[in-house]
Amino acid sequence: MKLAKMYSFFKADIDHIENELEHSIQSDSTLLNEASLHLLQAGGKRIRPVFVLLGAKFGDYDIEKVKNVAIALELIHMASLVHDDVIDDAELRRGQPTIKAQWDNRVAMYTGDYIFARSLDYMTKIPSIEAHQILSKTIVEVCVGEIAQIQDKYRYDQHLRNYLRRIKRKTALLIAVSCQLGAIAAGAPPEIHRRLYRFGYNVGMSFQITDDILDFTATEKELGKPAGDDLKQGNVTLPTLYAMEQKEIKSIILQVHEHMDDLEFNQVLHKIKSTDSIERSHQLSQLYLRKALKELEDLPKIKARKTLRDMALFIGKRKY
Amino acid sequence: MKLAKMYSFFKADIDHIENELEHSIQSDSTLLNEASLHLLQAGGKRIRPVFVLLGAKFGDYDIEKVKNVAIALELIHMASLVHDDVIDDAELRRGQPTIKAQWDNRVAMYTGDYIFARSLDYMTKIPSIEAHQILSKTIVEVCVGEIAQIQDKYRYDQHLRNYLRRIKRKTALLIAVSCQLGAIAAGAPPEIHRRLYRFGYNVGMSFQITDDILDFTATEKELGKPAGDDLKQGNVTLPTLYAMEQKEIKSIILQVHEHMDDLEFNQVLHKIKSTDSIERSHQLSQLYLRKALKELEDLPKIKARKTLRDMALFIGKRKY
Repeated sequence: MKLAKMYSFFKADIDHIENELEHSIQSDSTLLNEASLHLLQAGGKRIRPVFVLLGAKFGDYDIEKVKNVAIALELIHMASLVHDDVIDDAELRRGQPTIKAQWDNRVAMYTGDYIFARSLDYMTKIPSIEAHQILSKTIVEVCVGEIAQIQDKYRYDQHLRNYLRRIKRKTALLIAVSCQLGAIAAGAPPEIHRRLYRFGYNVGMSFQITDDILDFTATEKELGKPAGDDLKQGNVTLPTLYAMEQKEIKSIILQVHEHMDDLEFNQVLHKIKSTDSIERSHQLSQLYLRKALKELEDLPKIKARKTLRDMALFIGKRKY
Repeated sequence: MKLAKMYSFFKADIDHIENELEHSIQSDSTLLNEASLHLLQAGGKRIRPVFVLLGAKFGDYDIEKVKNVAIALELIHMASLVHDDVIDDAELRRGQPTIKAQWDNRVAMYTGDYIFARSLDYMTKIPSIEAHQILSKTIVEVCVGEIAQIQDKYRYDQHLRNYLRRIKRKTALLIAVSCQLGAIAAGAPPEIHRRLYRFGYNVGMSFQITDDILDFTATEKELGKPAGDDLKQGNVTLPTLYAMEQKEIKSIILQVHEHMDDLEFNQVLHKIKSTDSIERSHQLSQLYLRKALKELEDLPKIKARKTLRDMALFIGKRKY
């Protein structure tokens, strides 16, 4: 099943948010508009807004109330992508040149700042203090995580828990909070929004591990950027960590650097893929997925619960 | 009179905020802590927190309530400085190496993001929706202003109003909002907090024009960075705009570029200073200052009003 089909029963609301997103980044600066629109139109699955709306279905669903949460979270996500591309020195995202590539690092920095500032505008429309506190704590964590990501680059002696904490901050937290804040904005009781948080957290962990696997196994065309980019950039992800448990592979990985020639680099990639590291990574991703599905069991049996399940399974199985 | 003496009657509160500021940027990342502390200890006059506290004196002053506004605003200001240094490619600030110089652009970007995120944490503690809306609109404007500043670089045909709008967004808005939000947090009535906004706006305009004059007239030692840096970086400020009204000077200015040798560059600086551009800039700064003082006249005659007056005069007269 395609992602869009899963939530066809509230497609009008998703379209409403898409329009509002486009409206949200308008300014009187041509450069800002171009850069922001470039990013917006490069697409993305709008997973966070969808999770917000699904979370809200467990309370008193009102699109006018919940849309501000959805837009704020998607804008935060978009802003963090723009800054990520500066950190990672990335030229391509989803097959399109990144803002830092099309313009430069400074424009990327300020476009990110601007989109982030616009997200605040939507946040202020959310009347719940609890929502504000969760959001600001999340943003702090995401930022601390980004710095940690810079520091962890090329650190091949890091522990698995280091990696897990990093992907929590990078991905899982924002998905967890999307599910939770949707429910909070709709006035769902604490036991429900906390469960939705845990669901989102586990889905997010599974999602990011899959992302990290795909960086090794998918093609450049599927990824919209060169394969093996994480390894080349010194981002030590799960397949690399597992592969390095073999001393021979570790010594090869330690020689990887950004300007390695393609032939040599592809041999390293091949070596890593020939170990059980991809399979073991996949198993950990599946473990998180099962935990996510388990959280759903005790939620009210509404249509949104089925959709959350479908989305989790889709995310767990995706090939790119 | 020294700045610190003016507000000696609430020095304990200022110290309290200084301690809280130091506490506010602690994280479990060594790099973040070092970079943030580096910035914090480089000092700065903490003008925004002082204006917040003074604004609050016009309402029901409670340091525990108002400190969150003061810290949030100072953190926003600090975050914007870090990102500014990336935009301006600045090596020095207040005589200290900037974060981008001591580490690099990426660390500067994320330190700024982190400090900004921390400011949100304090913002969420402010119970007023009006305060949130004012803050988020201000942050949007500050970001739009920064992008405009990039675009306006080396644009020598810009109008005076372009410059004025830029310094409003760069400086005056945040000072205006500091005065206003202090009053709002303390429950002062709208006619008072709006007047304080206008006072802060005019002080801020005067302040930034003076800053732009000093970039031409102060010494490197006074500035803590090379003199004439704005001109060299293509930041077209008021003295340059006025000087360019003379065709001969304009043609010289158009030849300025970043890698000009010092001797040649100092000749251009000298040419600009030999016009009436510095004096005219000073007159405009004084005009804003008078407007600021005028706003004070209809405010309640409390001690804070006198301090606001002293601060405005100090800012108008400062030599560096």
